[in-house]
Amino acid sequence: MSGDLRIGIAGLGTVGGGVAKLLRDQADLLAARCGRTIRVTAVAARDKAKDRGVDLSACRWHDDARALAGDPDVDVVVELIGGSDGVARELIEAAIAAGKPVVTANKALLALHGTVLAKAAETAGVPLAYEAAVAGGIPVIKALREGLAANRVKRVHGILNGTCNYILTTMRETGREFADVLADAQKLGYAEADPSFDVDGIDAAHKLAILSSVAFGRELDFAGIHVEGIRHVSALDLAFAEQLGYRIKLLGIAGVTDHGIEQRVHPCMVPLAAPIAHVEGVFNAVFVEAEPVGNVLLTGRGAGEGPTASAVVADILDIARGHHAPVLGLPPSRLAPGETAPMGRHYGAYYIRLMVKDQPGVIADVAAAFRDNAVSMESVLQQARDPSGPVPVVITTHETEEAGMMRAIQRIAALGSVVEPPRLIRIEAL
Amino acid sequence: MSGDLRIGIAGLGTVGGGVAKLLRDQADLLAARCGRTIRVTAVAARDKAKDRGVDLSACRWHDDARALAGDPDVDVVVELIGGSDGVARELIEAAIAAGKPVVTANKALLALHGTVLAKAAETAGVPLAYEAAVAGGIPVIKALREGLAANRVKRVHGILNGTCNYILTTMRETGREFADVLADAQKLGYAEADPSFDVDGIDAAHKLAILSSVAFGRELDFAGIHVEGIRHVSALDLAFAEQLGYRIKLLGIAGVTDHGIEQRVHPCMVPLAAPIAHVEGVFNAVFVEAEPVGNVLLTGRGAGEGPTASAVVADILDIARGHHAPVLGLPPSRLAPGETAPMGRHYGAYYIRLMVKDQPGVIADVAAAFRDNAVSMESVLQQARDPSGPVPVVITTHETEEAGMMRAIQRIAALGSVVEPPRLIRIEAL
Repeated sequence: MSGDLRIGIAGLGTVGGGVAKLLRDQADLLAARCGRTIRVTAVAARDKAKDRGVDLSACRWHDDARALAGDPDVDVVVELIGGSDGVARELIEAAIAAGKPVVTANKALLALHGTVLAKAAETAGVPLAYEAAVAGGIPVIKALREGLAANRVKRVHGILNGTCNYILTTMRETGREFADVLADAQKLGYAEADPSFDVDGIDAAHKLAILSSVAFGRELDFAGIHVEGIRHVSALDLAFAEQLGYRIKLLGIAGVTDHGIEQRVHPCMVPLAAPIAHVEGVFNAVFVEAEPVGNVLLTGRGAGEGPTASAVVADILDIARGHHAPVLGLPPSRLAPGETAPMGRHYGAYYIRLMVKDQPGVIADVAAAFRDNAVSMESVLQQARDPSGPVPVVITTHETEEAGMMRAIQRIAALGSVVEPPRLIRIEAL
Repeated sequence: MSGDLRIGIAGLGTVGGGVAKLLRDQADLLAARCGRTIRVTAVAARDKAKDRGVDLSACRWHDDARALAGDPDVDVVVELIGGSDGVARELIEAAIAAGKPVVTANKALLALHGTVLAKAAETAGVPLAYEAAVAGGIPVIKALREGLAANRVKRVHGILNGTCNYILTTMRETGREFADVLADAQKLGYAEADPSFDVDGIDAAHKLAILSSVAFGRELDFAGIHVEGIRHVSALDLAFAEQLGYRIKLLGIAGVTDHGIEQRVHPCMVPLAAPIAHVEGVFNAVFVEAEPVGNVLLTGRGAGEGPTASAVVADILDIARGHHAPVLGLPPSRLAPGETAPMGRHYGAYYIRLMVKDQPGVIADVAAAFRDNAVSMESVLQQARDPSGPVPVVITTHETEEAGMMRAIQRIAALGSVVEPPRLIRIEAL
């Protein structure tokens, strides 16, 4: 490959504008790095008049992003429209069919259709690059697919959603409740007006599906991921976590178990000694446990114009250099099926908080429910006394199978002395 | 490129044996990842009979490693002999001259001759790969040269020597002194019989020279690095650091300043809030500050068979895939000269510990020395009282220029009331 590399950008929002600006600002450096000039020749966006801080008047403008795939002046299609279907998907499919390399930051699309798209790209022999889709500016896809490619991965876990990490960090630091902190995060632009994609764990699960596929060499299985968000984490749980030597983080975890690959996104109690416990605010982190390299932790900003543009342009540079690795790390025919171990077989420790009437016999009833389901308790904490109202009881358990734990919780929830649904947070031995 | 990729390994110590084993154990995975079979066809080592845990009897054995460059059954030369000159250098030069890609873990060689070797490799059009030379299993060269290649780096700093970090961590945790902990580390195999390469900061400086070249697109300048080791760090300083909210780490730091690129390796007071303060034991870490990505931190094991083999085989895989980026991130003609800002122009804060006679007037003399050199003190601590012997006085300063600080220290050291050479540790605002 030689000659200019001509880029078509679909979507000129914050990230699209950032990519155009970075390609302009670093044009000289990038040309030196890859021996070719990289320039934006076409764009697709609604409002041509809008000021994006970069002059794109010399580009061809398309109203329909899908036209970029057929534009003879476009060598590489950069898809920054978003959405798991519709125009974004049609554009990527058309670009692949036209033999044009694709760079995308679209995690939803990859999580749901990544296997099919990877197969189409491999068949067509064109790169499909997506560094920006997972953990923003952290080059984690490159690390897994290239830098750590000689390793057998045992587990990968990470803080994959900056909005949730910001909310949990702020809740812990201020003692305020979820709804209150979310409202502030929305004002500050750290959370969307409709926050459910972030706070319900869906965005983290999209990223985990991709990470897990690349880490373990398997087809994507987004549907198999157990997903819980952070809406039910309370200031009380954060305070108890601190007291027990933990910090609460929303983690995405994928790992090898006796029952297959498990994939789960949920709030976790993380020991304070774990480095990931200290990744705070909007930062993301990915922790890889692999043989023979051992443990590798990568931390950085997971979203925003700068980090995302950094990752998108790195992908463009790889394409300019002619670098081309299998989309998911292995040829499609070598990918294992995307099957996920059932959550009932998850084996781990638990934190449970009950709100109970302060009367004799409650702990005995609770303990019996655990015993009858072969769950072994590690500690029981009932600090407050208040005969007039409910008081918190906090239990931690030894490692046990989730199915038994869920039966125990169901029985405990039905006790007359338990006045709120039990809160359960898994404890991770990291 | 296609067909088998035939590897010649020079040096079958721990790392060389580890590479041969990893290539054998992961042969199938690696072939799937790059579409080619990678196999070891030749080796150079002294003792053919020695058990290395891997059967290499089918390989061609060379007594003289330099012969690998001319072996027609070798496509890629892996240099794991070590040493900044002699056979290692001659082998690499011969391989490049023969048009054979080279993979090396040799930081000393690269630190001293990296620019010349990079130019030779570029001229010959062959890859010279060295991921294993810096921070072991952490794919930091790939991150800087590819994953973050669109960024302008402002500063890079890191824990680049696991032996020093292990010693400092153990000293802090146990309150024991350097010599004592070093002796233990030697028994455990974490330190060499001759530890000076590690504890005097030379190994970290080798790695910093390489990192700095790749981060800032400049020729290497090992000679320009200001290097101090950890021999003079005492248990008392570690205790004071803790009290002041710092942790002492041996860092390698390279950054853009008003006087050019500064490069320095020395013990640092690192704020406890900095993530790198929590990188303990034999772990390494590299922290990159760059625009537009922001801050990225990479952590992992920096040495040992597994991590080093992981990095060497990743380089081999890149070569098998035909990936080829400029050795130092830019073509040699585009590299800036390797000039380092003089240490006297360093601008930063300082921790100084004096051992003084417990008598009136000492602090006044010390304060006058600082004042006359335009150094502004932030805090003075004299907790112990002991009229019969020396007591520690700890001073922290605001940011100031190093040259003035050194003049002040020289004057303070000459005071009759100061009974030991002052101890100075730079405070880093990370």
